Amino acid sequence: MSGAKKPRTDKKGFMERLNAGEMVIGDGGYVFALEKRGYVKAGPWTPEATVEYPDAVRQISKEFLRAGADIIQAFTFYASDDKLENRANESLNKHTGAMINQRACDIASEVAAIGNGNGPGLFAGGVCQTPGYLSGGTKESVQAIFRKQIEVFVKNKVDFIIAEYFEHVEEAEWAVEELKKTGIPVACSLCIGPEGDMHGVSAADCAVKMAKAGADVVGVNCHFDPWMSLEAVALMKAGLEKAGIKVPLMIQPLGFATPDCGKQGFIDLPEFPFGLEPRILTRWECHRYAREAYDMGIRYIGGCCGFEAYHIRAVCEELNKERGFFPEGTEKHALWGDGLRQHTKPWVRARARRDYWENLKPSSGRPDCASMSKPDAWGVTRGDANLVQHVSATDDAELKKLYQHEKA
Amino acid sequence: MSGAKKPRTDKKGFMERLNAGEMVIGDGGYVFALEKRGYVKAGPWTPEATVEYPDAVRQISKEFLRAGADIIQAFTFYASDDKLENRANESLNKHTGAMINQRACDIASEVAAIGNGNGPGLFAGGVCQTPGYLSGGTKESVQAIFRKQIEVFVKNKVDFIIAEYFEHVEEAEWAVEELKKTGIPVACSLCIGPEGDMHGVSAADCAVKMAKAGADVVGVNCHFDPWMSLEAVALMKAGLEKAGIKVPLMIQPLGFATPDCGKQGFIDLPEFPFGLEPRILTRWECHRYAREAYDMGIRYIGGCCGFEAYHIRAVCEELNKERGFFPEGTEKHALWGDGLRQHTKPWVRARARRDYWENLKPSSGRPDCASMSKPDAWGVTRGDANLVQHVSATDDAELKKLYQHEKA
Amino acid sequence: MSGAKKPRTDKKGFMERLNAGEMVIGDGGYVFALEKRGYVKAGPWTPEATVEYPDAVRQISKEFLRAGADIIQAFTFYASDDKLENRANESLNKHTGAMINQRACDIASEVAAIGNGNGPGLFAGGVCQTPGYLSGGTKESVQAIFRKQIEVFVKNKVDFIIAEYFEHVEEAEWAVEELKKTGIPVACSLCIGPEGDMHGVSAADCAVKMAKAGADVVGVNCHFDPWMSLEAVALMKAGLEKAGIKVPLMIQPLGFATPDCGKQGFIDLPEFPFGLEPRILTRWECHRYAREAYDMGIRYIGGCCGFEAYHIRAVCEELNKERGFFPEGTEKHALWGDGLRQHTKPWVRARARRDYWENLKPSSGRPDCASMSKPDAWGVTRGDANLVQHVSATDDAELKKLYQHEKA
Amino acid sequence: MSGAKKPRTDKKGFMERLNAGEMVIGDGGYVFALEKRGYVKAGPWTPEATVEYPDAVRQISKEFLRAGADIIQAFTFYASDDKLENRANESLNKHTGAMINQRACDIASEVAAIGNGNGPGLFAGGVCQTPGYLSGGTKESVQAIFRKQIEVFVKNKVDFIIAEYFEHVEEAEWAVEELKKTGIPVACSLCIGPEGDMHGVSAADCAVKMAKAGADVVGVNCHFDPWMSLEAVALMKAGLEKAGIKVPLMIQPLGFATPDCGKQGFIDLPEFPFGLEPRILTRWECHRYAREAYDMGIRYIGGCCGFEAYHIRAVCEELNKERGFFPEGTEKHALWGDGLRQHTKPWVRARARRDYWENLKPSSGRPDCASMSKPDAWGVTRGDANLVQHVSATDDAELKKLYQHEKA
Repeated sequence: MSGAKKPRTDKKGFMERLNAGEMVIGDGGYVFALEKRGYVKAGPWTPEATVEYPDAVRQISKEFLRAGADIIQAFTFYASDDKLENRANESLNKHTGAMINQRACDIASEVAAIGNGNGPGLFAGGVCQTPGYLSGGTKESVQAIFRKQIEVFVKNKVDFIIAEYFEHVEEAEWAVEELKKTGIPVACSLCIGPEGDMHGVSAADCAVKMAKAGADVVGVNCHFDPWMSLEAVALMKAGLEKAGIKVPLMIQPLGFATPDCGKQGFIDLPEFPFGLEPRILTRWECHRYAREAYDMGIRYIGGCCGFEAYHIRAVCEELNKERGFFPEGTEKHALWGDGLRQHTKPWVRARARRDYWENLKPSSGRPDCASMSKPDAWGVTRGDANLVQHVSATDDAELKKLYQHEKA
Repeated sequence: MSGAKKPRTDKKGFMERLNAGEMVIGDGGYVFALEKRGYVKAGPWTPEATVEYPDAVRQISKEFLRAGADIIQAFTFYASDDKLENRANESLNKHTGAMINQRACDIASEVAAIGNGNGPGLFAGGVCQTPGYLSGGTKESVQAIFRKQIEVFVKNKVDFIIAEYFEHVEEAEWAVEELKKTGIPVACSLCIGPEGDMHGVSAADCAVKMAKAGADVVGVNCHFDPWMSLEAVALMKAGLEKAGIKVPLMIQPLGFATPDCGKQGFIDLPEFPFGLEPRILTRWECHRYAREAYDMGIRYIGGCCGFEAYHIRAVCEELNKERGFFPEGTEKHALWGDGLRQHTKPWVRARARRDYWENLKPSSGRPDCASMSKPDAWGVTRGDANLVQHVSATDDAELKKLYQHEKA
Repeated sequence: MSGAKKPRTDKKGFMERLNAGEMVIGDGGYVFALEKRGYVKAGPWTPEATVEYPDAVRQISKEFLRAGADIIQAFTFYASDDKLENRANESLNKHTGAMINQRACDIASEVAAIGNGNGPGLFAGGVCQTPGYLSGGTKESVQAIFRKQIEVFVKNKVDFIIAEYFEHVEEAEWAVEELKKTGIPVACSLCIGPEGDMHGVSAADCAVKMAKAGADVVGVNCHFDPWMSLEAVALMKAGLEKAGIKVPLMIQPLGFATPDCGKQGFIDLPEFPFGLEPRILTRWECHRYAREAYDMGIRYIGGCCGFEAYHIRAVCEELNKERGFFPEGTEKHALWGDGLRQHTKPWVRARARRDYWENLKPSSGRPDCASMSKPDAWGVTRGDANLVQHVSATDDAELKKLYQHEKA
Repeated sequence: MSGAKKPRTDKKGFMERLNAGEMVIGDGGYVFALEKRGYVKAGPWTPEATVEYPDAVRQISKEFLRAGADIIQAFTFYASDDKLENRANESLNKHTGAMINQRACDIASEVAAIGNGNGPGLFAGGVCQTPGYLSGGTKESVQAIFRKQIEVFVKNKVDFIIAEYFEHVEEAEWAVEELKKTGIPVACSLCIGPEGDMHGVSAADCAVKMAKAGADVVGVNCHFDPWMSLEAVALMKAGLEKAGIKVPLMIQPLGFATPDCGKQGFIDLPEFPFGLEPRILTRWECHRYAREAYDMGIRYIGGCCGFEAYHIRAVCEELNKERGFFPEGTEKHALWGDGLRQHTKPWVRARARRDYWENLKPSSGRPDCASMSKPDAWGVTRGDANLVQHVSATDDAELKKLYQHEKA
């Protein structure tokens, strides 16, 4: 069931594709999926698995590719040295950030080269917000952290660099400024929603600032569900248009429904990070997301935490006509549940139709749980003492203070 | 962070362990997880991935092992020849059931041998209900189907055979009878809940029948959530005690909450199989499940569809004292959310405590969805024309008839 | 829009109607409705309003009549002297039980005489469970309490006496035995659900016991929603049939949805009594209730706490063909929402049809609330020290002890 | 338990009270409560009950007074002649608008004179939006409708006139302009939420327009729950402040939770008007509402549809210190559930405390229902053909067209 179009054998560049109006599909989220598989620790969320369990990282990358992704993002999330040693994280004792990033590039470039059935994929390195910035570090010190990470990317000839998961547009601007020195295209996304960044900069202004700092693509990732993320990108788009700036847009939202979250996104929800299961998106919700993103004119469409291979496959199946091909993973799937024709039970076969799945309102099976939570709203941000990071472990006294804060 | 007990280097047998009162932890569900990863097709649910994508099967097996499982089940679910060619499933055109099962044994034995940190694991082959039985096949013809499958298991010297996922205890008895001829231990579980089997045999009677047919271990798997499955096993236990029969008990429930399902289990729920996300268990629900199963005296504890590596890890972490060791995966986890001490945000660090997670009632994030569904209840079972399977594809006319049945 | 049948001018007796296979429709709940209107105090729930605010009691009685009720129950609930002085209830200081009951009879007989458009109504006196019994009183002492109450009923020539709201069938039997001495028909209902009475007597056995004690009609009232109450009456019916006893059945359930309540009914739910609003039945749910009750063969159909006039009207509108007339209140209503044709807004006019209302699943508008609660389950019953009543107020020390019990 | 302050014997005027910074508490909703009692027809919602069933109207007015209301609003809602004959409403055939309004004034003045324990109450006449305006009538024609209604109010010497329930501020301005000619104070409220009026005028601008047209008090009533109504009044307050206008604020929201409704308010919700039960406010939600309204500086605080006597009592109990007295209805109530000390069951006595009720999240008891609905959003307003009213009944052909519109 692969598409009609012949696969390319050449590798077309990242900006080349976007500038030609082509769509590029990103991959899904690594940290949450690998946490569940046993290779990433929730809390530090650092990617030393690239060194320790490369097979596991390779496998999930191949799943995203098979699901139709054009881009394989090297698993370099939070691999800055200050993060690798933050709060008793022992990763840095075992492996330097450079080692982790190098192995991440090895895996990502190897997998991307396989291609998704439509020609070779692209691979990207990534940087994200740093404990240094949160703790009040200077521009110089923060940029030094980025510089150290991107050395590896330059050496490995990544197709582009993703600067993502910034809560403060200021830090994103610092990152973009540094990254652009490499001459490699930079796609920059903030983990913000419609309410803007943590310092009160509107989504519209954030987009303009990123673009002015030099970002080749701008948008959002993580922290919010597809619908809130789309709302944020719509505001960005309007801001850019008003400023007369033309850059492609990107979106890589959560694979969780978060209508109840506040400005800080899903980390404020009481379910973060170990009780988010009831919020996991269905594939059908991803169909709708893909369609709305495409219709809004966004051309770099992917997923972040919670987005698994089958979510990306749904995005690619929804957009199969626009892209001209089905993902390879469709071999083991069928549009809109049609594979259920092969089920042994007649009432399940009766579900082999689009309108059934499109209109399904999935129950939670948890009658003693509500549908919406009240997010924590500590409202602390850069500059707050509670956000200053340290190398030593969080001790019980520090924890106790936090509990009391919470109750107050 | 592995436990205090020294790992065994010898491999202690399956019944040897159970007879010594030891616990064995099963692995989780393959078909649902591999469907999401892109390697199994929902509808036929057959395991040809063992031949086509062995890396993917090996990887998930390793995840279960790392999560603490003692048993790796060869991925042979539904690999009977009549299932491999049912309703236009083309698997049999490409690979015989024997090939699929052979490769499944290769992977499972290889992974089990690695061990879970507490000595070598066990590996098991499996058979389950057949289209032949559903369509009204004779005992002789159905047993011939089982015989063909277990030839491979005998050749590969599996540690034991699992006869599972039977909706009718009669077919399970036929299976056990055939399997016992090999001299290999047989663990037999039905996919039934507290209401008993599809022909109206009570859970208590089912247990007695399985044991009398020769099953060395009896219990339930799939179709129901942990709480309904525990209820079913409790009835089985009482039935066995009343009959004066002593066999170890097993349980491998769904990783989904299904309080609203009827006798036929989760396949009757409107969300099956593509909208079950809001029902996925949290790890904390698995802690509770493990404790209750252990306290009920069940000693073979695992998971079925929906049970992922982190759910098995939760089972093993809950029972770490009883087993004497932590799973290897605990390296990237910490009991009861303690790893959140390493989070950058203070309000997330404040969640690093047991009572927080133990009492959390996770919201669905879906205010337009209910918490309970009304299951389909066609009530058809062996003998109903709609259950007769065929090799040809389900055509539109057949589908249309089913829709009409549904509306009536 | 009154029915075709000519209204009777004669007054046909209670048992005469039932023995002729006619249906009688009861009224709704007084205490909850009058609590909301400001005339009954939640906690003691005593009916001194008959003396203090007779207009308010008369008004609500007229509403039930207008809604189609055949029976007006004198507002004598909990008007036993031991209840009127229990736990610092000052009612008895102001008015004797006899005074309260006399005024209740005055109002009920006056209103019943007006008739519901189908001839004169019936009026009934009522007794219910006593603090004396809960505190361990002897049969003699408890029957003395009943005797004192019914003197007024005899004097006022009530059409029949209702012995209702008993949690223990034993006390109901004592009551019936005493009441029967008057020669007046006795309808007896327990506030139990499918699980039976508080002492573990099954619903089936309870029915037989009531009938054998002399009750002319038996059934259930209060404590459970219509569906659980119907289930209880179905069990009673089966029990009576098995015992070869033939008595008419009655049902007067709550006007609240209570699928989550345990054996003790809605008083165990955390929402009792001041947070039950989201559970209030819609009129459409009462249509369904009326139909199911009628189809089960129940011929005395009414409502208890939470049942307001419009709920009774819905019962009467559903059964208008069987009864041969519409309630007078239909003057300001129309079957199945047809009155919305007169609405100014077109989309509301579009709701003027049966299938719209019959299929509506009403949302709660409370996304931070669950759909089911966990009932308190103290499991204390007659004989428990906590159930011994006293005349003095519940002091803070006693309350504190209760809080601690609750937390344990 | 009445307050410490001595009741006034003189009657202080409406504006006199507000100008002195005193609070006035309005009454609750008549049409919804009387619909349930059987005296108002949903659809037309007209108040001919003042003529037909004066006792019922008097009774509910007394309940509001007893609950603590300072104001009794004559039941004149929708009593304009064009409404009384709209779409086959036969009210006008039986009684003129003038008759209905006269009887309404009789009842309201009689009840208000009784006083709420703090001196004589105030009574008000009311006008609201007209079918004439919706159908495109001229200013002249619409004002003529108002003029006809207020003649009765002038004759009866109402304390003030309420111009309320306008969806378009333009019609409200026309009304105020006409009403002010009487020299009687005019309190004007729109049935709008934070999104402003149906013609797109913002809440802030609406407030300014009402004040400039001469309204002595401005605010909102009906259509939205307390929280959305408070949000709307906050916007009004800011608009007035910005415009330098100083008028007292009023609020009379729904007694239903409506977080999911759109611009048009609760009439768009699928549950309107016959399935709103799960949305009914608890008394504790009214406590919170009263506090927030008071803290925002609103001094005319009441309720509209769905607000029953016990909701108003909760408002008055919450504000008992500020007002200096408890409502008379507190005689049969106790602050924060304290009356439960008198309950026979120990676990119910354990609920006799504020924190229990303040923190209760009431379950719906309806696990197959969602918590939020999708409102109809036809978006039609004045000028749309579907809004043109007519005297003839809505026939089936017209209805059928509406169903089709709905499905499209």
